[in-house]
Amino acid sequence: MTTAEQQAAPNRFVLSEDEVPTHWYNLVVDLPYDIEPHLHSKEDRPALEEDYDWLWPTECLRIELLKGRYATDSWIEVPERVHSTYTRYRPSTLVRAKGLEQYLDSSDRIFYKREDLNPGGSHKFNTALAQAYYAAQDGVETLVTDTGAGQWGTALALACAAFGLKLKVFMVRKSFDEKPYRRNLMRMLGAEVISSPSETTDAGRGVLANAPDSPGSLGIGMAEAIELVRDNPSHRLALGCMSYYAAMHQTVIGLETQAQLAKAGVGADVLVGCVGGGSNFTGFVAPFVTGSEKPLCIAAEPATVPTLTKGEFRYDWADSERQTPRIPMYTLGSDFVPPPIHSGGLRYHGKTPILSSLVKHGLVTPRSFDQQEVFEAGQLFLRTEGVLPAPESSHAILAAIEEARRGTSGAPRNIVICLSGHGYLDLQGYADVLGLL
Amino acid sequence: MTTAEQQAAPNRFVLSEDEVPTHWYNLVVDLPYDIEPHLHSKEDRPALEEDYDWLWPTECLRIELLKGRYATDSWIEVPERVHSTYTRYRPSTLVRAKGLEQYLDSSDRIFYKREDLNPGGSHKFNTALAQAYYAAQDGVETLVTDTGAGQWGTALALACAAFGLKLKVFMVRKSFDEKPYRRNLMRMLGAEVISSPSETTDAGRGVLANAPDSPGSLGIGMAEAIELVRDNPSHRLALGCMSYYAAMHQTVIGLETQAQLAKAGVGADVLVGCVGGGSNFTGFVAPFVTGSEKPLCIAAEPATVPTLTKGEFRYDWADSERQTPRIPMYTLGSDFVPPPIHSGGLRYHGKTPILSSLVKHGLVTPRSFDQQEVFEAGQLFLRTEGVLPAPESSHAILAAIEEARRGTSGAPRNIVICLSGHGYLDLQGYADVLGLL
Repeated sequence: MTTAEQQAAPNRFVLSEDEVPTHWYNLVVDLPYDIEPHLHSKEDRPALEEDYDWLWPTECLRIELLKGRYATDSWIEVPERVHSTYTRYRPSTLVRAKGLEQYLDSSDRIFYKREDLNPGGSHKFNTALAQAYYAAQDGVETLVTDTGAGQWGTALALACAAFGLKLKVFMVRKSFDEKPYRRNLMRMLGAEVISSPSETTDAGRGVLANAPDSPGSLGIGMAEAIELVRDNPSHRLALGCMSYYAAMHQTVIGLETQAQLAKAGVGADVLVGCVGGGSNFTGFVAPFVTGSEKPLCIAAEPATVPTLTKGEFRYDWADSERQTPRIPMYTLGSDFVPPPIHSGGLRYHGKTPILSSLVKHGLVTPRSFDQQEVFEAGQLFLRTEGVLPAPESSHAILAAIEEARRGTSGAPRNIVICLSGHGYLDLQGYADVLGLL
Repeated sequence: MTTAEQQAAPNRFVLSEDEVPTHWYNLVVDLPYDIEPHLHSKEDRPALEEDYDWLWPTECLRIELLKGRYATDSWIEVPERVHSTYTRYRPSTLVRAKGLEQYLDSSDRIFYKREDLNPGGSHKFNTALAQAYYAAQDGVETLVTDTGAGQWGTALALACAAFGLKLKVFMVRKSFDEKPYRRNLMRMLGAEVISSPSETTDAGRGVLANAPDSPGSLGIGMAEAIELVRDNPSHRLALGCMSYYAAMHQTVIGLETQAQLAKAGVGADVLVGCVGGGSNFTGFVAPFVTGSEKPLCIAAEPATVPTLTKGEFRYDWADSERQTPRIPMYTLGSDFVPPPIHSGGLRYHGKTPILSSLVKHGLVTPRSFDQQEVFEAGQLFLRTEGVLPAPESSHAILAAIEEARRGTSGAPRNIVICLSGHGYLDLQGYADVLGLL
């Protein structure tokens, strides 16, 4: 990297609110292969709308099962009320990581897409807003969800506040106990927050009977949420990542990134993001994987939850109680309880089918990373860029750093990171792992 | 407020990095009155550069004592290395608070300037960067400072990391104990963080001898910092707010706001900001108080630290040990230990002389606010705007809300809030005050 080239280059690529995407990209239509259908949770046949109309808001279910235009149209118009709220905080800025570049002394250019500055502090609001909108359209009274680190619960609480919906959140116990601040944030927004596994559902009681000290997991939380919805007709489920609709809503990230790189006058050579369920990553890479550029797309996951790098591709349930449709995905098994790592958002046994298919067909390359190096990468990013990433996002940063260090003999490449969230509520985790006592 | 007008209006006013101010505004030159000089800490005469060259970086001291061009030039060029870093995160966005407007159903328009998205999460980085630059120019090895809630310490730690300086931070004990996360953040950045009052200085030991449980204060922290600098020739003092230079550096906020309001096609009728030492507020209102518009400028302070609303205007020391120059300001007395409220950044006995003079001469209107209402205003802002303000900034939000509720019989007014910092590290305070257990 010549310092002169770097200094002369713009720091930030800012789009106007008129440039917020008006459509989500329904990439499944354009993939060069067919996606296997969701199957009924217990019967040996495809899942039907009438099987799960008690569980999801109508439009979410239609997207999830690829019904109607979702089976045929590449572009889905963003509803006006959702779009007008997007324009209050989007497009998010794309930043050139000049500080990190200088530190690495690599010939590659590094960029990051700032989803950490969204309401709630992560990418999650992009889909929370749409889900709350669809639920309100259906006359739903209460949304129910699960959350790990709390990014999703916070974003959904904001969206429910905007649409006048009630919200109940099953928060993975390890996070509930160790991250009281996100819990408080959700309560400030009016949400009811319940530690999971809980005594309020059969699913929770079942786990507690076998493992009273269970740290919980997203799979258990989801099972509790589903049970509550099943027992309450005015309730519906909202999912932060383990759904196709969440991934589709997140395509605003990738579409904006594409426009911003075009403004910067560069192509995308490498795209990196972290994967919990897979929604931010899939939305980020979606417009690129079906395009002509074919960048290297790296999905970064924790070494201790190696779903994509060591899991098996097969039909499995999204929740620990096997109430969801069976979905075709890479999985560690729906009864897998991930170790209590500090990246709560990545503690999940499976990856959403759309992402799993991209990996299976070679369009996305999964890599796994050790926690210690991940947190050191986050610290380096803070020191060089002045930005504190969520530990989840630090997986993507480490992937980018390793890629830049690996280098190539060819021309400088453009590496783009999806910075999915901020780490202000993860400082205890950073202190523990980095030994800052 | 007609909904149609509001809906059609832009949400965000974004400037390009080419529009970052190239000069700070040295407003003291343009004021319609003379500022009283700083006096020597003990002798009855004006403070001289040679009295305090051991304390401050050279250029900071020259600004502080209005020497050379600082006595004559309205515009001071931002050094290239500082400016190029400003362009990595500035101009900050000005946002129309449509959610809050709708909630209040007021005829006024409300805007907020997002200094909370800066590196370190507050306005503080704007001056930290300049101070670290000047210190590095002087060959200083270590900067020493005090911090309350930790916003300032964090910003300075980032700036020191950028310029290769060491940093020692005396952190007010109440915050040190109750806000371990900011402490960890500073340590992640390589700073040495010391609880104040400490056993490492005579000043600290003196306080502890009389009051072993002292919660500390910014005045005590500053006294400790000054003592350490006095005893170490390679050390210099950095001040987050109680200096003219910090206020001058913060004029980038006001200058950008002026340009953004011009883009929005509106004038400024009311400007509101919170005041601890006074730097973010003074920098915010600076270009307006000497202009022709003469907006109502409201300085919001806590009712329990009523420096501007109930303090006395006289010469006083900035630190509890009376080592600083005596400065002309509103003060509650340099031995005042503020009650342990949750807005750590506002727990200070005085207000910087430049702000004190603006109040004394009627160019700024001080108002004080109760903690409970302040935190409720912050909660309302979170629910309506999706943005969690620092409790300090929530004072400004409450001031704006009260002003909008008061209304006028005339045309809709434009109320602009300086959102000085985010509240992600203040969630315990919010939970305590709002009773979210």
